[in-house]
Amino acid sequence: MTKVTMDKIVNLCKTRGLIYPGSEIYGGFANTWDFGPVGVELKNNVKRAWWKRFVQEDPNTYGVDASILMNPKTWEASGHVASFGDPKMDCKKCKQRFRADTLIENHSKGKVSAEAMTNEELTAYINENHISCPHCGGFDWTPIRKFNPMFTTSRGTLEEGADVVYLRPETCQGEYVNFLNVQRTARAKVPFAIAQIGKSFRNEITPGNFLFRTIEFEQMELQMFCKADSSMNIYDDYKSRALQFVKDVGLQADHLRFHDHDKLAHYAKAACDIQYLFPIGWQELNGIHHRGDWDLSRHGEFSGKSMLYLDPYTNEKYIPNVIEYSIGADRLTLALLCEAYDEETLENGETRVVMHFNPAIAPYKVAILPLQKNLSDKAKEVFALLSKEFMCDYDEAGSIGKRYRRQDEIGTPFCVTIDFDTLEDDTVTIRDRDSMKQERIKIANLVSYVEKKVKFN
Amino acid sequence: MTKVTMDKIVNLCKTRGLIYPGSEIYGGFANTWDFGPVGVELKNNVKRAWWKRFVQEDPNTYGVDASILMNPKTWEASGHVASFGDPKMDCKKCKQRFRADTLIENHSKGKVSAEAMTNEELTAYINENHISCPHCGGFDWTPIRKFNPMFTTSRGTLEEGADVVYLRPETCQGEYVNFLNVQRTARAKVPFAIAQIGKSFRNEITPGNFLFRTIEFEQMELQMFCKADSSMNIYDDYKSRALQFVKDVGLQADHLRFHDHDKLAHYAKAACDIQYLFPIGWQELNGIHHRGDWDLSRHGEFSGKSMLYLDPYTNEKYIPNVIEYSIGADRLTLALLCEAYDEETLENGETRVVMHFNPAIAPYKVAILPLQKNLSDKAKEVFALLSKEFMCDYDEAGSIGKRYRRQDEIGTPFCVTIDFDTLEDDTVTIRDRDSMKQERIKIANLVSYVEKKVKFN
Repeated sequence: MTKVTMDKIVNLCKTRGLIYPGSEIYGGFANTWDFGPVGVELKNNVKRAWWKRFVQEDPNTYGVDASILMNPKTWEASGHVASFGDPKMDCKKCKQRFRADTLIENHSKGKVSAEAMTNEELTAYINENHISCPHCGGFDWTPIRKFNPMFTTSRGTLEEGADVVYLRPETCQGEYVNFLNVQRTARAKVPFAIAQIGKSFRNEITPGNFLFRTIEFEQMELQMFCKADSSMNIYDDYKSRALQFVKDVGLQADHLRFHDHDKLAHYAKAACDIQYLFPIGWQELNGIHHRGDWDLSRHGEFSGKSMLYLDPYTNEKYIPNVIEYSIGADRLTLALLCEAYDEETLENGETRVVMHFNPAIAPYKVAILPLQKNLSDKAKEVFALLSKEFMCDYDEAGSIGKRYRRQDEIGTPFCVTIDFDTLEDDTVTIRDRDSMKQERIKIANLVSYVEKKVKFN
Repeated sequence: MTKVTMDKIVNLCKTRGLIYPGSEIYGGFANTWDFGPVGVELKNNVKRAWWKRFVQEDPNTYGVDASILMNPKTWEASGHVASFGDPKMDCKKCKQRFRADTLIENHSKGKVSAEAMTNEELTAYINENHISCPHCGGFDWTPIRKFNPMFTTSRGTLEEGADVVYLRPETCQGEYVNFLNVQRTARAKVPFAIAQIGKSFRNEITPGNFLFRTIEFEQMELQMFCKADSSMNIYDDYKSRALQFVKDVGLQADHLRFHDHDKLAHYAKAACDIQYLFPIGWQELNGIHHRGDWDLSRHGEFSGKSMLYLDPYTNEKYIPNVIEYSIGADRLTLALLCEAYDEETLENGETRVVMHFNPAIAPYKVAILPLQKNLSDKAKEVFALLSKEFMCDYDEAGSIGKRYRRQDEIGTPFCVTIDFDTLEDDTVTIRDRDSMKQERIKIANLVSYVEKKVKFN
């Protein structure tokens, strides 16, 4: 396998219609990206696979889709208004702002973990190692302060005033505030989980490394409500389920590892990440956190609504513990792009770039390619048939070899070629992306042939 | 059919886990709603059906998923910064703010269309008819002014300043700014469309009528780029495709009508809505607008990037016209809820509430109901089998009659009952929601039985 770089991925995504820089015609907009025709299918497939596994197939998990704009009290209860934020410092010379922990991690090439350092420790390290401004080279820093990355807006309803409203920086509060609603209307019994896929926003100022860190991002996460005495088992269970999922969508086991957190929030009982070996090194892909009863207790306190759960099995009343499992849809999409990328040398010495996506998450399942333009009527019939079932591409421009290469570059698992025999006997050639082997099959068998191979199980 | 009211729908949605008031434990947050376990499936099915019809099955339409936060220049080019907004006036007595056109429409019980009135006409009408404040009853209005409903936030990157950023008030700009990207990377030929499903935000101050008008809402829309001389045909084509779609997802023809706009924006060549007969009267469900070449021309002007398209068939260079087709996912979901609602009197005199959703958009496809608790192992096997394919519910609490009623109220098309015969011969009873008829079928045939009936074609 040829070594994949972030530049190669960004470039392929841009030229092949997967992902473009956001608002590109206006010079872009830092740390935003727009999914193009190919990329939107990839990301949607990732989201569907997650929802299928963790919501559809799990009788104890209930989905929700909560508003992005929430009552601001939510963020007081969660602690985000008072103490959310990363340690930031400004270069007095060029006025650029940086995260102190990131400066240290970049300077040490990832050898020093600054995540758990206090502001004093960060300052001391930066001074001792004379870490200068990556932008202008100066060494003249302001003190470190917390910078709250919540985007704020205002909800005007009255002439004289407007209320501050936040763009949610995480989706999970949508589950907590609906704990009582879901429990009651689904008649759910602890342990049960509430799951959500949705966008969150953070005013990130550090370079994002493509989809790795963006100012708006989509989370796939669930909050499992459970009794304290079974909570560690459930935590362990989600660790293995989370690992299994990312393997099943296509990440190799040796590019994945657990990373236990050194330092925990005061309320947390355990926390770990699953890291993936990105081209920029081992980085967090998802998190599994044991949050104790902190979240529901706080919302009980701030809302005045009792979060006590009456256990019908034991008759005990308690505030459930929460196990959180959260993974970024964009970040996972990036990992899958990196994992899938390959440059192969063919027998004739040419190189083909091919994205070896798991067929279940590949953007297009089938490309329909008429061998010549006068076969396009028949090819469009086949497109009409297959597009009832799968996302398909249709391409009649250029040599067949070129068209295969285009499909390889976006990871289409199957190419169906329509030729003159097709008109005679209703058979087509179907070519496999990975083996490049071709076989002849009947049009009538195409749907079931493809269906089996592109299903996420 | 019993007359459906908005109150009945809101109440059913809340108690049956479809839709809860947003941030309810904090007293709510005006004009926001959270989709619960049942509602999130309904809305996702609506979005999937639309995407399947207009993107997946249409070889000339390309999907995108653009950022909500865009370069602010976008909104200068679109005209939203300068002149977006509704005519608002405040009651000087109670300080509440209202839309002048809505006041008139409510006062005239929908008989007067105020949409196209100028501020002078609105003021004159309100004075002549002495329309007083709906909140306090006073008649002491401020002059009418435009109130820009774009939410603003700021993107802090430098110490001293922060840029104003807008939450997009419409998704379509994500297509316009990516016109060149999509055209180039998909090698698309005019006419072609770019489609998107995504959230938009408007600082609405008028009461929302449940999902009808919310401060954040999800749009399903496409922008068709075409040559001027074929544009009116394409406009007409989308009118019929749009109508067909809402019929196919489940709205009755006699609850739908076209409404041509009286007054057009200066650049527009034609515009019409499809209206639906909501419990609050005939209201806009979706729009089809012929926008001329306004959008691409403005973005060309403001970005300095040429939006000229070289037509490979005619060798002409032109800026394409745009036909916009846009429908609100939340609003359509509301229409489908209203349409599906029914109260039936049964033979025994009891009333059953039943949601007659098209099976393709019904939240759950199958409910699995063990007749007794000691059959739950077998029932869970059946759940495991079916939940690989469909969203299913599992319920073992209460009498079978009660459990049927619960499924009727959320519109589950099929109930599968597991009884003692199931253990013997692997057959189950499957009950149809609408006819309430039951038949006995083999477990091995369940998937194919249901699959055919829940597919959106």
